[in-house]
Amino acid sequence: MPLVVQKYGGTSVGTPERIRRVAQRVAREREAGNDVIVVVSAMGDTTDDLAALADEVTDAARRRHPREFDMLLTAGERIAMALVAMAIRDCGCDAVSLTGSQAAIITDEAHTVARIAEVRATRVREEIAQGRVVIVAGFQGVSRTREVTTLGRGGSDTTGVALAAALGADRCEIFTDVDGIYSADPRRIPDARLIESIDYQAAIELTTAGAQVMHPRAVEIGARYDVPIRVRSSFRDEPDYQGTLITRRSHVMEELALTGLASERGNARITLRGMPAGMDAIATLLSRLAARGVSVDLVNFIDRTDGRRQIQVTVDEGDQLDEAREICRTMLDEQGGEGIETETGLSRVALIGSGMHGTPGVYARAFQVLVEGGVDVLALSTSSISITFLVRGADEDRTLQLLHGAFGLGTESQ
Amino acid sequence: MPLVVQKYGGTSVGTPERIRRVAQRVAREREAGNDVIVVVSAMGDTTDDLAALADEVTDAARRRHPREFDMLLTAGERIAMALVAMAIRDCGCDAVSLTGSQAAIITDEAHTVARIAEVRATRVREEIAQGRVVIVAGFQGVSRTREVTTLGRGGSDTTGVALAAALGADRCEIFTDVDGIYSADPRRIPDARLIESIDYQAAIELTTAGAQVMHPRAVEIGARYDVPIRVRSSFRDEPDYQGTLITRRSHVMEELALTGLASERGNARITLRGMPAGMDAIATLLSRLAARGVSVDLVNFIDRTDGRRQIQVTVDEGDQLDEAREICRTMLDEQGGEGIETETGLSRVALIGSGMHGTPGVYARAFQVLVEGGVDVLALSTSSISITFLVRGADEDRTLQLLHGAFGLGTESQ
Repeated sequence: MPLVVQKYGGTSVGTPERIRRVAQRVAREREAGNDVIVVVSAMGDTTDDLAALADEVTDAARRRHPREFDMLLTAGERIAMALVAMAIRDCGCDAVSLTGSQAAIITDEAHTVARIAEVRATRVREEIAQGRVVIVAGFQGVSRTREVTTLGRGGSDTTGVALAAALGADRCEIFTDVDGIYSADPRRIPDARLIESIDYQAAIELTTAGAQVMHPRAVEIGARYDVPIRVRSSFRDEPDYQGTLITRRSHVMEELALTGLASERGNARITLRGMPAGMDAIATLLSRLAARGVSVDLVNFIDRTDGRRQIQVTVDEGDQLDEAREICRTMLDEQGGEGIETETGLSRVALIGSGMHGTPGVYARAFQVLVEGGVDVLALSTSSISITFLVRGADEDRTLQLLHGAFGLGTESQ
Repeated sequence: MPLVVQKYGGTSVGTPERIRRVAQRVAREREAGNDVIVVVSAMGDTTDDLAALADEVTDAARRRHPREFDMLLTAGERIAMALVAMAIRDCGCDAVSLTGSQAAIITDEAHTVARIAEVRATRVREEIAQGRVVIVAGFQGVSRTREVTTLGRGGSDTTGVALAAALGADRCEIFTDVDGIYSADPRRIPDARLIESIDYQAAIELTTAGAQVMHPRAVEIGARYDVPIRVRSSFRDEPDYQGTLITRRSHVMEELALTGLASERGNARITLRGMPAGMDAIATLLSRLAARGVSVDLVNFIDRTDGRRQIQVTVDEGDQLDEAREICRTMLDEQGGEGIETETGLSRVALIGSGMHGTPGVYARAFQVLVEGGVDVLALSTSSISITFLVRGADEDRTLQLLHGAFGLGTESQ
């Protein structure tokens, strides 16, 4: 019997009425002759509410009491999975809910940000063999020392894809509150197009670059184990609606060179002026930033005619900016540099597509359209399937519009 | 090092502020040189809220989906125990929370009403040996087939006393929102007295007969394993306040003949008139009622001069009354009885004391004072340490007052 894994996000199970709707969908899948594993997130804002409760009891609960924080948060999926199991049983399907521990989702020991080491899923297999629908708590696992862990951001998606990989599922469906992956954010680019089919690498780039649809780490597991993933809305049921299929190779024969755009606000760029030449300064700076957990992106350096160089790093505007500046300031003093500037309110816009590598002129065309459109590109970086532009926040929408139009991302055939 | 088990009820951990207060109390216990196990209930109304959520998703969740219902409810203590552990760690004590399953509270398979079979508590012992305060989720356990179960009413008290018994604790303290066990309900009998010391049997009778302080099943475990239990308010801290000590033998040398009064409203009495003589009818009636799960109390029969008899049974006025009447009606028809009457709104008042058995005249004095006070006693039953009177609801307060006064229950020395 074909095996289907369906993951439902917090919005999809946010109310009793929605839980019943999820159950009906699962029941239809059973009636169609499939075995079904359901992975659930906590209902609506439950996880945030529990975290807020912890912050009322103690300061910085997540950091200072990570084991207990995980114990606390895992109550959220437990509630959702039990309710979903009841609703599925009400639809006439035998069903059983399993915690991450019961499902043997084995993780490392890193509380609040655990990574899955192995999916044993013995009990899941047994229950499926008994003809039951198995509901598994997303986002949670258990370490080899039997401690309850949580997987951090994107955890439930990761549970879903990992279970699909471990059990060799025929399909893995991620039900969420958006329609799928778009060529750009449809709230900002009106003619953004829902992408029918996309390959793993392009999906990873798009989701990493800011598309909020699903978490790139889950797509990475899909890529590693070749699990086709379908991302779709749990609120749409029309027969011709299918969401977005993420798979090894786009199922569209005439593959689009470029798949989509994603953007992320809230970047800051720090410039160290008048640093000594050579790679030592940059290497030291990057290792110090890494040691303090500061994520760095878009590292540039420009040599001046006087033999000294400018070094630029881009970091999140959030918590880490002050720390990054302090590290840069120390470096500057040690190396006798001239000064530091920080620009905030910057955005990264990424143009993504697996076809880019073999397609000449993408880089040139993108640059040309932005220059003509009056966008000041502050920095850029490229990978084999993406080009990322750093622009001022005020230019972000215009950058998206210009690129979306220039590469015909809104049209079916390019 | 002495080992103390402290159980905190839902009100005691009902808010973040109260959780911090519990943590301070636990920390003081550690500073006094004791090992501490903390058993917690779910916060405030969490358990009821979760049950209500289930009833929004499905009908009769508890009965129709008992396994999932248990999975759902156990989220409640999980939340409370993680928060309590964080707060205790904030007080500078190392602490770790364990679920019923991690603490190896082994139960039978009876979901929603499981009974504890064994407390292995291997992990609890290990953590205590490491110098940690161990917080254990009350009310929950795990079956031998690794299913999560809940213990039903009085479950958290039961977890506390069972852990104290299994680990040979020196003290077991039940922290609640009342001051302890009173000679009668202090809201109704103004001069009711807080009982300093009471033996297990009297405490079982008092709590069974309606004193809401703690659940008799927990006291029964205390009696079986000889665990001294102290019931006290978590909101009082005066040095001379000690609550009520439940122990094998009252620590007061000159033991009171009578310890206290308890009462319960909402009883109904069904009378079957003109039934055949002999015990067959009663035996059949009782077994049919039992088969349908109807709890029966105060069974009476009176033979008439014509050779036929009246049979009376007392049942709860709640859900079971209609079912009980239907069973009685069928019996009446089968046996050619004359008719059925039902009186509702009746109360049971129990006079309890381990000294009663050897004390002549208690029975007579109780009856006399009630007759003189104008109370119509509809039925009564006795055990070795209690007399229970069935009276009309309107007479309940008067019955309590008369008995409380007659036996000097409000005074320190009798």
